[in-house]
Amino acid sequence: MRMVDLIEKKRDGKALLKDEIDFMIEGYTTGTVPDYQISALAMAIYFQGMNEEETALLTDAIVRSGETIDLSAIKGIKVDKHSTGGVGDTTTLVLAPLVASVGVPVAKMSGRGLGHTGGTIDKLEAIKGFSVEITNDTFIDLVNKNRVAVIGQTDNLTPADKKLYSLRDVTATVNSIPLIASSIMSKKIASGADAIVLDVKTGAGAFMKEFDETKKLAKAMVKIGNDLGKKTSAIISDMGQPLGYAIGNALEVKEAIDTLQGKGPDDLSELCLTLGSHMVVFAEKAKSLEEARGLLKQSLQSGKALSHFKLFIESQGGDSSVIDDVSKLPKAKYEMEVKSQKEGYVSNIIADKLGTAAMMLGAGRATKTSTIDLSVGLELRKKVGDYVKEGETIVVVHSNNQQIEDILLRIIDSYTIKKEKTSTPHLIYDVITK
Amino acid sequence: MRMVDLIEKKRDGKALLKDEIDFMIEGYTTGTVPDYQISALAMAIYFQGMNEEETALLTDAIVRSGETIDLSAIKGIKVDKHSTGGVGDTTTLVLAPLVASVGVPVAKMSGRGLGHTGGTIDKLEAIKGFSVEITNDTFIDLVNKNRVAVIGQTDNLTPADKKLYSLRDVTATVNSIPLIASSIMSKKIASGADAIVLDVKTGAGAFMKEFDETKKLAKAMVKIGNDLGKKTSAIISDMGQPLGYAIGNALEVKEAIDTLQGKGPDDLSELCLTLGSHMVVFAEKAKSLEEARGLLKQSLQSGKALSHFKLFIESQGGDSSVIDDVSKLPKAKYEMEVKSQKEGYVSNIIADKLGTAAMMLGAGRATKTSTIDLSVGLELRKKVGDYVKEGETIVVVHSNNQQIEDILLRIIDSYTIKKEKTSTPHLIYDVITK
Repeated sequence: MRMVDLIEKKRDGKALLKDEIDFMIEGYTTGTVPDYQISALAMAIYFQGMNEEETALLTDAIVRSGETIDLSAIKGIKVDKHSTGGVGDTTTLVLAPLVASVGVPVAKMSGRGLGHTGGTIDKLEAIKGFSVEITNDTFIDLVNKNRVAVIGQTDNLTPADKKLYSLRDVTATVNSIPLIASSIMSKKIASGADAIVLDVKTGAGAFMKEFDETKKLAKAMVKIGNDLGKKTSAIISDMGQPLGYAIGNALEVKEAIDTLQGKGPDDLSELCLTLGSHMVVFAEKAKSLEEARGLLKQSLQSGKALSHFKLFIESQGGDSSVIDDVSKLPKAKYEMEVKSQKEGYVSNIIADKLGTAAMMLGAGRATKTSTIDLSVGLELRKKVGDYVKEGETIVVVHSNNQQIEDILLRIIDSYTIKKEKTSTPHLIYDVITK
Repeated sequence: MRMVDLIEKKRDGKALLKDEIDFMIEGYTTGTVPDYQISALAMAIYFQGMNEEETALLTDAIVRSGETIDLSAIKGIKVDKHSTGGVGDTTTLVLAPLVASVGVPVAKMSGRGLGHTGGTIDKLEAIKGFSVEITNDTFIDLVNKNRVAVIGQTDNLTPADKKLYSLRDVTATVNSIPLIASSIMSKKIASGADAIVLDVKTGAGAFMKEFDETKKLAKAMVKIGNDLGKKTSAIISDMGQPLGYAIGNALEVKEAIDTLQGKGPDDLSELCLTLGSHMVVFAEKAKSLEEARGLLKQSLQSGKALSHFKLFIESQGGDSSVIDDVSKLPKAKYEMEVKSQKEGYVSNIIADKLGTAAMMLGAGRATKTSTIDLSVGLELRKKVGDYVKEGETIVVVHSNNQQIEDILLRIIDSYTIKKEKTSTPHLIYDVITK
């Protein structure tokens, strides 16, 4: 088999077979197939696509390129959740203890990641003492005992995806649905869960801006999961504006605590209940989504969810007193209020622009070696549909620097205020199960 | 400027600008732009194409990637000829002395090349003593003195093209008209000619099989030449069946000698007169194609063309007595006759298949390190349109090996003989001048 023939086949719009895809991914992982052939192939895939079968075969080949996590020592059906990423996305912090509190085992492998704010691990590290540096055995023991634990990502997972992603990033081949779908799903599948609930964001603040494209991606991922024997569903949710009110690591932990007490922002709470219900049903802890939602609501109201968060924090060395006294979270030196210069209804918030403002404050990593300031970020006071008076605060900025005129301007710029009343945007656009 | 942005721009169907194309070719030549970005770009070009301006800019950037030959010390208008390659193409051997004999300076830089038979240099080396290992100064002196000389290709010409071609060859991006056109034209332009006549082959034995595609390629090349200040025209000629009767190095030298005496095959003679007329007009040695053709015919009839070939051979150390005694050319041990098993008219000859048969005899190089057997090859006795009786010889095989059943079968297979009369195929399909 020659790689050039496989590139030509895909270039001409034909489907690649299992042994061809294996040849190419094995060769790329071990180094016998060079970067320059894979990048040409990736561009051919960008133009010609891949059918569902090819995409599943590609995902499977990527999974087999490295280690896979064996979670069979954990009792019950392990359900993982993945978000395609957006601005102010605090769902994992809420969901992990919430669904664990109703009996779903959550064995979460998480990363630090690049972006507007840190990843789940960074956020959790805003809690003093919390550590994800635990052994695999401890991880499994903790999930069996508490039904929830978080561990840092293993380096040996899906090496082909790491190489492929770095290459796509510099060859303008990121934006291809089969390549995105196989990249995300290979990591989830290698992480060992039995079922996967995907939170696929759509809108200006998401990676996929157009609903039609988002739906294609969601369908591709659900198909891969189901084809490879993992129950999978996808919720397509709004990322036109940021989710919740907090953007920043400590600020999002505080928001998660509020939400676990049933006092969180409407959109964040609703999204967690929706995603959580699917997880509970997949884990066979409820027979229907309605029953699952009932269980989750009860856990929020009874304080069970919050005390499960406490347990989770303590079991990984964290100071759980933060839950009763959020002033123990890292706090920025300055709080500055951004005020509205107009009266009217907020008709639009450019999520991306606010996310970048948070990153400029130090809340996220621009490169792998950047360090994160856990204390800084934005607290939104107004969201789309809200009425605002002239001079009223729209955003509170938490910063360790007073010279941030450019950031303040960027925040003002990201809000559009109009006289006409605007309705609150839709949150859940679609649910894909096959 | 970032290469990834240029790839994205082309991927999205936009035209690249001069400084962007320069950045990419300079970077690729010096090594700051890696293979894997260029191969992704090449695939994007495969799908999105390049407009005429981009293609000319690309060609110019490739020319500037290395040395260019300065032929200004040669008096007169230097006209180069290039063929896109086919089976049994003896035109250069005929054209060089022929047009030189009527006053056109021919400063030919030539290669050995891969393929069914050797390149022009290999063919000339079938003449004892002939050498292309001459200095640049000698080369220029010889052209000034005799109006014709051949020199081996300089290594430092168009290094970007060499890298790019090797990369395209293994990434399924060879077959892109702007990339083919810029590759061919960059070499011609770097070689220093003032005007270029292109012999673009079409049909089963050519690189481009379809006439429409061939015409696009011809137009692209002519446009590049004219845009970069070189008078350029292209003759689209038939390569459905081999050109002339000889396929093989010494055999083609013999055929060239015949043709220079006015006794050559009709198609080869006609193509040489057509290409030659354009060269003569470009060199301003005639005012019209008709006048040019008259001059060339006269030279063939008077023996001037043949004696110019003699002069050319002698001036580069060759034994010119071969012209009067072709038995001095390398001769294979065995001559085998392939006979027709049917009676009828030859309706088709698969040029490619015969070319490969010649290569299997040893007439061409499969890889750069293969050695060529100058003596072997095929002598066609019948071409398309000819009537043949059962048992009549269709091809004489010149071989140094008697165990060649597979080659003989391949030759029989490449002929189609039918009862119905077939007309001789068209030779010249089109002439492109702008």
